[in-house]
Amino acid sequence: MTTTVVAGNPKPGSRTLDAANRLAESLTGSAPDHIVDVIELGPGLLGWGDAKVKAAVETVASSDLVVFASPTFKATYTGVLKLFLDQFATGDGLRDVTAVPLMLGAGPAHAMAPDLLLKPVLVELGAVCPLPGLYLIDSTYTEDTRISDYTERWRSALPVKGSGS
Amino acid sequence: MTTTVVAGNPKPGSRTLDAANRLAESLTGSAPDHIVDVIELGPGLLGWGDAKVKAAVETVASSDLVVFASPTFKATYTGVLKLFLDQFATGDGLRDVTAVPLMLGAGPAHAMAPDLLLKPVLVELGAVCPLPGLYLIDSTYTEDTRISDYTERWRSALPVKGSGS
Amino acid sequence: MTTTVVAGNPKPGSRTLDAANRLAESLTGSAPDHIVDVIELGPGLLGWGDAKVKAAVETVASSDLVVFASPTFKATYTGVLKLFLDQFATGDGLRDVTAVPLMLGAGPAHAMAPDLLLKPVLVELGAVCPLPGLYLIDSTYTEDTRISDYTERWRSALPVKGSGS
Amino acid sequence: MTTTVVAGNPKPGSRTLDAANRLAESLTGSAPDHIVDVIELGPGLLGWGDAKVKAAVETVASSDLVVFASPTFKATYTGVLKLFLDQFATGDGLRDVTAVPLMLGAGPAHAMAPDLLLKPVLVELGAVCPLPGLYLIDSTYTEDTRISDYTERWRSALPVKGSGS
Repeated sequence: MTTTVVAGNPKPGSRTLDAANRLAESLTGSAPDHIVDVIELGPGLLGWGDAKVKAAVETVASSDLVVFASPTFKATYTGVLKLFLDQFATGDGLRDVTAVPLMLGAGPAHAMAPDLLLKPVLVELGAVCPLPGLYLIDSTYTEDTRISDYTERWRSALPVKGSGS
Repeated sequence: MTTTVVAGNPKPGSRTLDAANRLAESLTGSAPDHIVDVIELGPGLLGWGDAKVKAAVETVASSDLVVFASPTFKATYTGVLKLFLDQFATGDGLRDVTAVPLMLGAGPAHAMAPDLLLKPVLVELGAVCPLPGLYLIDSTYTEDTRISDYTERWRSALPVKGSGS
Repeated sequence: MTTTVVAGNPKPGSRTLDAANRLAESLTGSAPDHIVDVIELGPGLLGWGDAKVKAAVETVASSDLVVFASPTFKATYTGVLKLFLDQFATGDGLRDVTAVPLMLGAGPAHAMAPDLLLKPVLVELGAVCPLPGLYLIDSTYTEDTRISDYTERWRSALPVKGSGS
Repeated sequence: MTTTVVAGNPKPGSRTLDAANRLAESLTGSAPDHIVDVIELGPGLLGWGDAKVKAAVETVASSDLVVFASPTFKATYTGVLKLFLDQFATGDGLRDVTAVPLMLGAGPAHAMAPDLLLKPVLVELGAVCPLPGLYLIDSTYTEDTRISDYTERWRSALPVKGSGS
């Protein structure tokens, strides 16, 4: 199984990326195979056909499990993450990918954003999203038990490798 | 595997119910085991503890696969369906249930409602929702191929019986 | 100016209704002219054409300002409130009505529900919704300053009587 | 009254921008005072503090009426538009601005996106959004009467200059 983490924070090497890595490792038992720190793809994100961007899209599209992570900006995911998602084909860009929406915020008020706002974009790209979105508080996620609680509650809803699609 | 259909149309025996039956049969290969035509539960829906309502909740909660179907009223699911969903426990009421959101409308303008509005309620009740919501046109669903196309595209994303949860 | 409060709590005389009254009074300087405690309309809500329900719909439709209030059930408004909203005509049922969405919850996690979920239903009915949705914590709204802060910030966005529609 | 149009299409000089200009002119009776074709702001959008981006933010924030326009990408607004919106201050970035959400799509399926997805971002920035979102079909908006119908139905809900905030 190939696992990839996508983090859409305008700051490279962010807590968003760290939290996504932790979630991927918690769900699968090992570190992700690939990491896409979207902002490092640079200005090619603003157009179409950039080689680095295309390679990142292909890495994601050929993964089995992808954690899509964003900080909460203006009560939803970032423009940086959406720029990257805009590069995928509608309906098929994430075909056969199991996608997990993850968002981090400073407080609890935006806890509905992963399921109401981020997940529908992943569904539109053809991903399978069997798990609820996860929302973490950015100042406490390294100490609280939200990630392990989520894994315990939801891991069984991930497709069993070799049995499904 | 136990399959149940829930239809939240104020009119009993509606096209909503018919479409839900067709979808359940298309996804599983056989007619649903149980049917909950919500409006037939009557005024007990307006309070708590009604015996018929409780029995219907238990039927749904102990199913493996449930199609939740609604016509589109005011650009979202009906009050009748929501009354019934309000009877389930938050977080656990649909634990271990795979839920499929289905909505019917007179035209295409409300096609986003199943994923943006109905699915999040099912997720809040603890259901696993691996498939995208399905939106059907109420005047053509018996003749078009939307249900069979959906089944072909998405059936593999349903949990494999005996392997998952 | 005619002001009405609509509360969609399955329990009559709820805190939802109390909070809506307080908000209406804060926004206008006087108690609401009419109160619709939806659950008191009874089983007529489950069908069409009930005289009490129709009278309540007409009261609301002929108001200038209406606070629509709901507790948070399953991360959104109640089935009881939606049953009542389903009685209005799509597109025109709230024409020339300024509507304010209000929701109460036990904690902060569902703060996005008024704007993402309740307001769009009011918009679909043709209401003017110039103010953001308000979300209150049901255990503290009588003591905190959320209602007065909201009024101070947003009152100027209400239509000026006699100048607009 | 100062009117500004913001278009978030990755292609400069797009139909999105044209439609936004037409809507602004229809609502106000004259061409917009300012146009922000977001993509022309370039790579400065990917960070913070770029002078051109800051100037565009100030132009928008000091306008009375702003049409925010986007094509529909992946069933919602573009990453390009969201990049620009991420540059505004939460809660106050659009204070005293009346904002109108406009989206264009190839077909009718995404008609709910302006009210469910774009408007909440504008509300989070503190804008007043009294009008429903408008969704146009990109191949017919120059010939159909959607813009003029919308203006006729909703113009009276715009704040009357000098009377409100």
